[in-house]
Amino acid sequence: MSHNSFGHLFRVTTWGESHGIAIGCVVDGTPPGIRFSEADIQAFLDKRRPGQSRYTTQRQEPDQVRVLSGVMPGDSEGELVSTGTPIALEIQNVDQRSKDYSEIARRYRPGHADITYDMKYGVRDYRGGGRSSARETATRVAAGAIARRIVPGLVVRAALVQIGTIAIERERWDWAEIDRNPFFCPDAETAERWAAHLDAVRKQGSSVGAVVEVVAEGVPAGLGAPIYGKLDSDIAANLMSINAVKGVEIGDGFAAATLSGEDNADEIRIGGDGQPEFLSNHAGGVLGGISTGQPMVARFAVKPTSSILTPKRSINADGEEVDVMTKGRHDPCVGIRAVPIGEAMVACAIADHYLRHRGQTGRG
Amino acid sequence: MSHNSFGHLFRVTTWGESHGIAIGCVVDGTPPGIRFSEADIQAFLDKRRPGQSRYTTQRQEPDQVRVLSGVMPGDSEGELVSTGTPIALEIQNVDQRSKDYSEIARRYRPGHADITYDMKYGVRDYRGGGRSSARETATRVAAGAIARRIVPGLVVRAALVQIGTIAIERERWDWAEIDRNPFFCPDAETAERWAAHLDAVRKQGSSVGAVVEVVAEGVPAGLGAPIYGKLDSDIAANLMSINAVKGVEIGDGFAAATLSGEDNADEIRIGGDGQPEFLSNHAGGVLGGISTGQPMVARFAVKPTSSILTPKRSINADGEEVDVMTKGRHDPCVGIRAVPIGEAMVACAIADHYLRHRGQTGRG
Amino acid sequence: MSHNSFGHLFRVTTWGESHGIAIGCVVDGTPPGIRFSEADIQAFLDKRRPGQSRYTTQRQEPDQVRVLSGVMPGDSEGELVSTGTPIALEIQNVDQRSKDYSEIARRYRPGHADITYDMKYGVRDYRGGGRSSARETATRVAAGAIARRIVPGLVVRAALVQIGTIAIERERWDWAEIDRNPFFCPDAETAERWAAHLDAVRKQGSSVGAVVEVVAEGVPAGLGAPIYGKLDSDIAANLMSINAVKGVEIGDGFAAATLSGEDNADEIRIGGDGQPEFLSNHAGGVLGGISTGQPMVARFAVKPTSSILTPKRSINADGEEVDVMTKGRHDPCVGIRAVPIGEAMVACAIADHYLRHRGQTGRG
Amino acid sequence: MSHNSFGHLFRVTTWGESHGIAIGCVVDGTPPGIRFSEADIQAFLDKRRPGQSRYTTQRQEPDQVRVLSGVMPGDSEGELVSTGTPIALEIQNVDQRSKDYSEIARRYRPGHADITYDMKYGVRDYRGGGRSSARETATRVAAGAIARRIVPGLVVRAALVQIGTIAIERERWDWAEIDRNPFFCPDAETAERWAAHLDAVRKQGSSVGAVVEVVAEGVPAGLGAPIYGKLDSDIAANLMSINAVKGVEIGDGFAAATLSGEDNADEIRIGGDGQPEFLSNHAGGVLGGISTGQPMVARFAVKPTSSILTPKRSINADGEEVDVMTKGRHDPCVGIRAVPIGEAMVACAIADHYLRHRGQTGRG
Repeated sequence: MSHNSFGHLFRVTTWGESHGIAIGCVVDGTPPGIRFSEADIQAFLDKRRPGQSRYTTQRQEPDQVRVLSGVMPGDSEGELVSTGTPIALEIQNVDQRSKDYSEIARRYRPGHADITYDMKYGVRDYRGGGRSSARETATRVAAGAIARRIVPGLVVRAALVQIGTIAIERERWDWAEIDRNPFFCPDAETAERWAAHLDAVRKQGSSVGAVVEVVAEGVPAGLGAPIYGKLDSDIAANLMSINAVKGVEIGDGFAAATLSGEDNADEIRIGGDGQPEFLSNHAGGVLGGISTGQPMVARFAVKPTSSILTPKRSINADGEEVDVMTKGRHDPCVGIRAVPIGEAMVACAIADHYLRHRGQTGRG
Repeated sequence: MSHNSFGHLFRVTTWGESHGIAIGCVVDGTPPGIRFSEADIQAFLDKRRPGQSRYTTQRQEPDQVRVLSGVMPGDSEGELVSTGTPIALEIQNVDQRSKDYSEIARRYRPGHADITYDMKYGVRDYRGGGRSSARETATRVAAGAIARRIVPGLVVRAALVQIGTIAIERERWDWAEIDRNPFFCPDAETAERWAAHLDAVRKQGSSVGAVVEVVAEGVPAGLGAPIYGKLDSDIAANLMSINAVKGVEIGDGFAAATLSGEDNADEIRIGGDGQPEFLSNHAGGVLGGISTGQPMVARFAVKPTSSILTPKRSINADGEEVDVMTKGRHDPCVGIRAVPIGEAMVACAIADHYLRHRGQTGRG
Repeated sequence: MSHNSFGHLFRVTTWGESHGIAIGCVVDGTPPGIRFSEADIQAFLDKRRPGQSRYTTQRQEPDQVRVLSGVMPGDSEGELVSTGTPIALEIQNVDQRSKDYSEIARRYRPGHADITYDMKYGVRDYRGGGRSSARETATRVAAGAIARRIVPGLVVRAALVQIGTIAIERERWDWAEIDRNPFFCPDAETAERWAAHLDAVRKQGSSVGAVVEVVAEGVPAGLGAPIYGKLDSDIAANLMSINAVKGVEIGDGFAAATLSGEDNADEIRIGGDGQPEFLSNHAGGVLGGISTGQPMVARFAVKPTSSILTPKRSINADGEEVDVMTKGRHDPCVGIRAVPIGEAMVACAIADHYLRHRGQTGRG
Repeated sequence: MSHNSFGHLFRVTTWGESHGIAIGCVVDGTPPGIRFSEADIQAFLDKRRPGQSRYTTQRQEPDQVRVLSGVMPGDSEGELVSTGTPIALEIQNVDQRSKDYSEIARRYRPGHADITYDMKYGVRDYRGGGRSSARETATRVAAGAIARRIVPGLVVRAALVQIGTIAIERERWDWAEIDRNPFFCPDAETAERWAAHLDAVRKQGSSVGAVVEVVAEGVPAGLGAPIYGKLDSDIAANLMSINAVKGVEIGDGFAAATLSGEDNADEIRIGGDGQPEFLSNHAGGVLGGISTGQPMVARFAVKPTSSILTPKRSINADGEEVDVMTKGRHDPCVGIRAVPIGEAMVACAIADHYLRHRGQTGRG
């Protein structure tokens, strides 16, 4: 058991604090012969990197990843080949603004983990949120880049589908759009509405929540396992472990509670290729915890950034009542940067179950 | 790793199929000196037991639990004392209707795990759903009864808060009501509406989904751990592992996505007892994955029962297209019986984290 | 983590005390489609069963195993087919002599775990040693019978190679002999010497230690893993977990410490089948924690039975100094019954690594 | 599960190859408030560091450790305080002799893991042994330095007690001696004999095996757990995971097989402090897998270094028969440097069980 690891056969252990020397992770269990490059990982890190638009925090971090172990040179320039031994990934912390932490060190910012870390440990790294900072998620994105290579044909993509109360129109969904706006929004019109809305939120020093949808295509049928090794159960845990996430759903999710059995049934026929073909996907690609071969669909809700300019009532470590306001760098909607993180966490869960399925059944 | 275990220091491993000889679980890691009786466990099993109203399946199972190991006699009649060794709990299967399974053995019921178990394993126990049957959840409820005894002062209760599109009125919430209607509904008026609605659903041979809310009070502050050992992450996994669950949320959950940072902030003051006091609980009792000492609030969505009287298109194991209709015993809303199961899964997660916290910090 | 489980992909969780209602185990992770019968398991249990000669304890237990879950009927009478879900095995306790435990309940027998269980837990099942009784090992033997079926071509056998100071002559090793004497001795002449020696030991109410050697043939090359998943490391843990075991060695073991690098080297050539062929097996079938394809050879030392007729100085739970002598059933050499247990523990380790290897590499 | 992690609540994950950029480990589960410095860790690393005498390999590595996460500054210069989050330790590889690996890349050195890594993975880092190099053990020693701080009063020391056939005289055992000779030998006279012997071995380009004894004092009674969480079982696995180890024993170990029950019994009296006092320690400090409070005594056998100057028959990756001789840096007795590694592995096992015991029982 480790509080800082996830996965079983594809197992990721992360370490590091927001303002320490570096952050990193150890990716264990990668099959031998998997080919990737630092540039492949970097491409995903660059999607998550802060400071790329005015809608995310202005912290400037190059987030340059280094592969320290577990690989040999591949056939082409920069290509690496996994050897089956643990792959250590490391990212230096660069933009650790040297500043005076005496004020923040003892104040508990509402909505942050400051108070609970102190309740639990009695000591914490208060610089930039320490271990509870979203900075840790960079290592997940790096691990996810390797996970994607493990399952042949797997494609995991995510999109922001709601900011505050403004949701996308699903009929306008176009995956190509997600690279054309700073929100990973698959609906160009909604992206424009979000831009206007977030500008207002940002100017008020306020923040807003969001919903992210992750879709995994090319998931082989048969992944997942009864009863506590369900694929959707592991995906739920992985997504809920992302900072600020308050809800997770699979397929129709909470809307399934409002359906009748007739409407919720995904009927099955034999497809043109002689394989089972589902006529709908209310289930989100999983039945009884095991993948059906349909796209896996998961959504998660991200709460509004707790760091806001409005002073809020709180206490400090001395038990005194204080007002707390977050100055400095500001992220009006942390849900945006959660998009590549959600992709990575789903990819890791699928890679893990791919190996687990192969272990037990010899298939895959 | 085990696909049939959950928890780490308080660890439950379950076994058994719907129509096998028995079902059971091994509860490992219980501290020595915990006092309970078979009757304590039985009381929770009786809440989950089918056939108690016309709104749940008419399968008749006494669900009589036996404690086979891990205990010594206590001081009073029937009292048991845990010895710290594994506690084996067993429930005989009684109502295994002897019938002809030749038809169901090779047909895949839409919405059930029949097809995915076959995709994964190539062999399955098709009698009554086998391992994927909700019957397995009886063992979770039994384990939960022990979990409740481990954390001093812990009270875990759950209620059904929505059936189909009919939600309760939160102002009418009265915990005393949940024992007065067959739905575990905390709102007497809504319970009456549900009764009428479910009667109609049942007569049509249809089914409907539901939402369950679990509230844990008396959770010590400091339980849970960064980053992949978050209390809410483990609760999400535990709840998502329950049959037919499609979504999980903590505190405000998906509604948090629509809030501003100002509205979502749980401000903190010093309470009358000199301890931190939160002025609201949008977070649902957890910040950064660690409990705040407030009530833990989790909700989960249950899809409508897949077994319905309306024929649905499917295929069989021979790759032929067939129509499937579920005859016989029928459960119009499986969400009802999910209430005690949800309680048990949350209680187990909290007990596990109570021991994990004590292990690392020596506190608790 | 569980204190009562071992293995990862082939995972066994055991429960039960010497004088409780029953003992049992849950075998999780068995691949689907493995064929076996209760009679197959029973055959191994019968080897371990006490009371079969005057050299082992006279407790009379039929040790009849029942398979409660995880299987469907096979093609022939009694044949079972694993479904991939957990297999629960159960053995009723029959010979729980009803007697007065008031004396033993509070006295610590030297060499037994009585005192340490009380130091740890403060409460224990003192009847017949409770959880620390060798009775628990019956469930390991049952699990081992399934493990043997998982790896095609695997044959795991063990023999007693030393009792007290009397070791076998290796030149006389004949596997056929182990079924012809009550010691699992591969050397007929030594078996006779042991018979005479043990008769004397038994009459004196004394006891003696022993050494068991386990040989696994048909282990595929490539099982095991760096660094903490070494096959020999897991075998060492498995064997050391058997009651009364005080030492474990692989291949030449402690004798390797006395060798020169030249003498210890297992040279390699290309065999007649074009495959690597080792010219010796000092390594015992494992290099760097990974199997070579040669026979795996492990030995373990069993201390003399602690229950003897000579009174020994000890204390009781009240902190009083007492003399303790074990009356009643007596086992002069527990090492004898450790033979089938050692086989089972090695078979389980190999089956687990077979699945782990297949999971990571897709081979096997 | 991870093939590169050990421990449960005190959990260490290591990574890195002999000739990669760096090696390191993540130490997870350390309680908050543990105080140590990089210098503390360095002191243990310096004991293991090669090139310190003519009896160990001449590879020159400063083995300078850096603490990258999981700590805050303590009260004095260089002091660190653990925060309860993962502690990442890293050591740069400096002396990676740039040389031509074309010869070694495809030849299997007898006694090394070259062939089995290729059998398993089909690809390996052949530079200096890659992942199978003893270089990885530096990270264990670093982790062990933290483990020592977790259990109050714990002192773990080890000594070399045998080289080849030359064993120490136990009556001359003096812990002060181990720092006065290059062998960690507690017997000054034997150390002189070893010096002469090893000089001869080294000149011949040969090697020799050894036996290491680890003694842990200050282990609280009650650590360890039935049945598969036995303290001695975990110590056996930890020690067997060290490179070149072929045997492990606890207390009297294999010699216990030759004893009678009367001679093996550790009798118990009430000591001057009113606590149980054992009159001997054949058991090596553990009964039924649980610590007695006596010193924990474990020994392990290290095979002779496989790298020798005498050519040995082997094959290469192309299936051709070749002769292999190890040129260059040479370590006549790897057992010497195994002494601090053995200490570290035992310390880690005890720290892990200390936390596990505290988790389950609330004591410790």
